[in-house]
Amino acid sequence: MIYDLIIIGGGPAGITAGIYAGRQRMKTLLVTKEFGGQMAKKATEVCNYPGFERISGMELIDKFVEHLEHQESVEIKFSQAEKIEKENDIFIITTTENEKIQSKTVIVSTGADPRPLEAIGEKEFIGKGVSYCVTCDGPIFKNKTIAIIGGGNAGLEAALFMTNYANNIYVLEFGPEIKADEENQKDVKNSDKIEVITNAAVKEIKGDAMVNSLIYQDNVSKENKTLEVQGVFIEIGSQPATALAKGLVDFTKRDEIVVESETFMTKTPGLFAAGDNNSGPYKQIVTAAGEGCKTALAAYDYLRKTK
Amino acid sequence: MIYDLIIIGGGPAGITAGIYAGRQRMKTLLVTKEFGGQMAKKATEVCNYPGFERISGMELIDKFVEHLEHQESVEIKFSQAEKIEKENDIFIITTTENEKIQSKTVIVSTGADPRPLEAIGEKEFIGKGVSYCVTCDGPIFKNKTIAIIGGGNAGLEAALFMTNYANNIYVLEFGPEIKADEENQKDVKNSDKIEVITNAAVKEIKGDAMVNSLIYQDNVSKENKTLEVQGVFIEIGSQPATALAKGLVDFTKRDEIVVESETFMTKTPGLFAAGDNNSGPYKQIVTAAGEGCKTALAAYDYLRKTK
Repeated sequence: MIYDLIIIGGGPAGITAGIYAGRQRMKTLLVTKEFGGQMAKKATEVCNYPGFERISGMELIDKFVEHLEHQESVEIKFSQAEKIEKENDIFIITTTENEKIQSKTVIVSTGADPRPLEAIGEKEFIGKGVSYCVTCDGPIFKNKTIAIIGGGNAGLEAALFMTNYANNIYVLEFGPEIKADEENQKDVKNSDKIEVITNAAVKEIKGDAMVNSLIYQDNVSKENKTLEVQGVFIEIGSQPATALAKGLVDFTKRDEIVVESETFMTKTPGLFAAGDNNSGPYKQIVTAAGEGCKTALAAYDYLRKTK
Repeated sequence: MIYDLIIIGGGPAGITAGIYAGRQRMKTLLVTKEFGGQMAKKATEVCNYPGFERISGMELIDKFVEHLEHQESVEIKFSQAEKIEKENDIFIITTTENEKIQSKTVIVSTGADPRPLEAIGEKEFIGKGVSYCVTCDGPIFKNKTIAIIGGGNAGLEAALFMTNYANNIYVLEFGPEIKADEENQKDVKNSDKIEVITNAAVKEIKGDAMVNSLIYQDNVSKENKTLEVQGVFIEIGSQPATALAKGLVDFTKRDEIVVESETFMTKTPGLFAAGDNNSGPYKQIVTAAGEGCKTALAAYDYLRKTK
């Protein structure tokens, strides 16, 4: 069997592509390890998806999935796509179980994974005080002292969320200043639980069974300093999950898939990339959803033209 | 006073731009005659905005507006912008009340108006059986026979909606075939209330106090034919509301504002166009919302760079 469309990834971009593909009655398979992408994993509280003034990432993704499940022509497969190839105008997707699935068009909406800090002790203490996800692990640190690494929007939002649990929160930013939305900066300034430390290069995460401290170098004085913390959340950006498309697409320096910016088609006809893994600017839930919609309609047009 | 941003238009694009401008704490004014754009006027039932499996256009717009109203830095002005000019890096917006308002950046999200058919009797019978909006006027035609002019998605969706009210529905398409989503075509085929007539050039709408018939020419046989109908809904596309930006932007043949497709900036720095009035493809609620978000973030970046 050859699908009209395979969508790889189950975040806001992939789900919206699925909703639109379903409305176009395209024979569609959505392949994902799990639903939600970063929205479920990381977005503790979503306040910027129009229509929902305030909703948890998990609740919003549930609503998206319910919406998707009503599309009759869309099948869902819980698996992971490892490789995309193209032979004689047909795409072949290989999953981690080595299954091969064929399709006339493909939308890659695999999003992005958290970028590791690569400090000493980081890997060792994952699950023992080191985390990349305040939504997932935040409540464990009730009344504790924690550090958030990264002074961008993600870091500040994680810190603000953690004011619900932790007693003391350090935000460590490598650069000389915080780079985040004004609103986030203002809220952080107004919190008496959060202390921002700039020019901080994290060197080592230490502990016994669990994390108990963190060492950073002050980039100006070159002095090493120790913070006693029970938790470390790493929020220094993300790494687009794009390796599976190698050979069929061009990449930016940041490993994003280069797309044509109206239809989000890659350099390979019939292959599209929507959401956090492409080269477009301004990565938000609503922009990922908009791009998912556009790629599904573009894939439909592509199929009609190549019939 | 000079605003950071003026948003012109209160549909999904404008409202989302407002939500994001508010989150960036930009001093923002949103100018609109009313909220909702085509979504409120025309989208009887929205089934394709992710997160809401099925919701009326009015309900969805209410949720958008409520979300917007929580943004502290955004003022709303119920008025109509008539002209945009730029002098010494500052935009001057003139309203129909001849008020002049200044801003550093502007997002035009004025959407599109219904395109008139320009048949004899059309203007005369507006409000007397002729309408451009099934949501607004559909219920008046309970148990009546009506014609929908236009065999695109809008026409078929209007016809499907009207099966809730009318007894008999003709869909008249000028071309030799229907051009709409497969799903809509299938649903229309399955309805025993709807009859599709292709190759139909509408010539005249007739009546006394109210519409009572419609004359069309068969484009193949060249014969004139009469349908006895009590209502005529015109669904032949829309006309972007872009005249106010004349002089500052380039237009496509269809009067859409030409934009750079990543930031949606026009040829005038600081002036953006989001949603149905720009040159981008695939006009949907979720794509308009995504573009509203991108233009607000792009306007914020533009302000920081030109500070």
